[in-house]
Amino acid sequence: MASVAVLGAGSWGTALSIVLADNQHDVRLWTHRKEQADEINTNNKNERYLKDATIPSSITAYTDLTEAVKDVTAVVLVVPTKAIREVCQQLKEALSNKVTLIHATKGIDPDSLKRVSEMIDEELPDKLYEDVVVLSGPSHAEEVGLRQPTTVTVSSATMSEAEKAQDLFINEHFRVYTNPDVIGVELGGALKNIIALGAGISDGLGYGDNAKSALITRGLAEIARLGSSMGAKPLTFAGLTGVGDLIVTCTSPHSRNYRAGHMLGKGQPLEEVLEHMGMVVEGVRTTNAAYQLSKQQQVEMPITAGIEEILFNHAHPKDVVDQLMTRGRRHEMEDLSNIL
Amino acid sequence: MASVAVLGAGSWGTALSIVLADNQHDVRLWTHRKEQADEINTNNKNERYLKDATIPSSITAYTDLTEAVKDVTAVVLVVPTKAIREVCQQLKEALSNKVTLIHATKGIDPDSLKRVSEMIDEELPDKLYEDVVVLSGPSHAEEVGLRQPTTVTVSSATMSEAEKAQDLFINEHFRVYTNPDVIGVELGGALKNIIALGAGISDGLGYGDNAKSALITRGLAEIARLGSSMGAKPLTFAGLTGVGDLIVTCTSPHSRNYRAGHMLGKGQPLEEVLEHMGMVVEGVRTTNAAYQLSKQQQVEMPITAGIEEILFNHAHPKDVVDQLMTRGRRHEMEDLSNIL
Repeated sequence: MASVAVLGAGSWGTALSIVLADNQHDVRLWTHRKEQADEINTNNKNERYLKDATIPSSITAYTDLTEAVKDVTAVVLVVPTKAIREVCQQLKEALSNKVTLIHATKGIDPDSLKRVSEMIDEELPDKLYEDVVVLSGPSHAEEVGLRQPTTVTVSSATMSEAEKAQDLFINEHFRVYTNPDVIGVELGGALKNIIALGAGISDGLGYGDNAKSALITRGLAEIARLGSSMGAKPLTFAGLTGVGDLIVTCTSPHSRNYRAGHMLGKGQPLEEVLEHMGMVVEGVRTTNAAYQLSKQQQVEMPITAGIEEILFNHAHPKDVVDQLMTRGRRHEMEDLSNIL
Repeated sequence: MASVAVLGAGSWGTALSIVLADNQHDVRLWTHRKEQADEINTNNKNERYLKDATIPSSITAYTDLTEAVKDVTAVVLVVPTKAIREVCQQLKEALSNKVTLIHATKGIDPDSLKRVSEMIDEELPDKLYEDVVVLSGPSHAEEVGLRQPTTVTVSSATMSEAEKAQDLFINEHFRVYTNPDVIGVELGGALKNIIALGAGISDGLGYGDNAKSALITRGLAEIARLGSSMGAKPLTFAGLTGVGDLIVTCTSPHSRNYRAGHMLGKGQPLEEVLEHMGMVVEGVRTTNAAYQLSKQQQVEMPITAGIEEILFNHAHPKDVVDQLMTRGRRHEMEDLSNIL
């Protein structure tokens, strides 16, 4: 039994807290919203973010970060990508001992073009943790909260740290595998949100499963292409954190990125979509980050470029998808053959 | 404009006939059921197999094979795997000239363990065709019949034959790519039906998208493992005829194999499921063929073995899926790393 702080009480932070509580750990769930902390502590509910789940009483919510991380042996960061640096700054002051540091945030920072683990490394001093662990995989929070069977991957450059994370989370409903390819695991989780936006757009336009699966297949190829150019192992994109997460995100209305794409496909402008969602849609900023990275790395990413146009330059979704479907290429493997 | 015979007036044969008719070809659709031929020729409908589509009047249905293939330049075989050898025997007598020979049947023969193109090669004399072309990819017939955007792959050991097929079918709704890996294209299309049964079983048991996407991801790995051992290029399984077709088949109720799996997961016995479907469920016989091939090739295929147990040995679906979810392996890449 360990004492673990989970920072971020959104859907995924809450679901991961439930897994840890099921494993008999003492869980400290941090949120900066007082009414949310009260709801969790008093009613055992987090209605807005994980409405069907009952929060076990071994989870205590805190609004004070120093209190939340006091004497914990592990910290799980599950805040939006946009908040990672700021929360790390606060964590630097709040932590007094060395911890196992895990993050489960899927995004890339469009300002610095850094992955989440790179931002953590830049913000937190070495003495507070051994090495960052990334937790990723095909996992709707709603299903995890209901103990539906789920598999995820943990990855760290230091295998012993990944194994500590594996030991904390693994149980009969929640299978945890290890993978040493941090870059691939992290990029797969982040970049699939772009393709989920695309899948939603295709469905929103009224296109069928044939079109969507073509888009997902070609999306996987361009994700793997960018990832490889950044040092990821191509094989990782064929695993749980690549194709697995892509499938679950692109084919289920549980996914916020898919839902946002669906509204865009129906013709709603981005501002309206984001207002309606009321939660962070990581894929929007990740599209812009990946678009910049594709230029920097000189990697062709037609789907990402098309979604960038829809999101930020008022391109019409139908024009973009039709253009993607009718590109001149005729030999299927020519854009895959140099990466996988 | 060419004259093309399509042999088999099921969902897929009818949908492909519509594509050919849209491309201004003279299409001769062969069925051995007189009432179906009459319905197509008189009412321009094929209600049982493709109910939402209107059959263009440039498609003529025939019940006499010799009449159907008279003077055609191309033949498209779209009969169930079980009927391939018999139809080829008839075709041998009926054909008087050399044709472009395309097949779009997804299965493996459990008796000879041969792929469809291998069976065709065994049954038809060389003088009647240059080389078999396989047409495969993520394509629900219903959507193709409604001209929804679709992408497929054509593959032949003789590229010029694949290109002839590409020219016959390609249009603005129906994108056709070429791929020289006949074994990979053919095996991907056949084997994904096993995983579609598994995905249906998982959903039928009431498990969620997380479980299903894990199953699909691991299913892709075992398909690629068997395929590679049989001479396919691993890369092909990352393309349209691999992951693309897997996604479309495993996540849509359009798929017969998925629907059959769903009923099995709900506890219905195989005989009852097949009777209820009333159409060929290729995945059932393909599972048995792949199970035998995995033994022959000494390739580990835990999902296929589990489904074989459910289909033919009365294993309980829940026991099989639970066992698959809790296998001892803990390092994600160990079963992928030697194939992709």
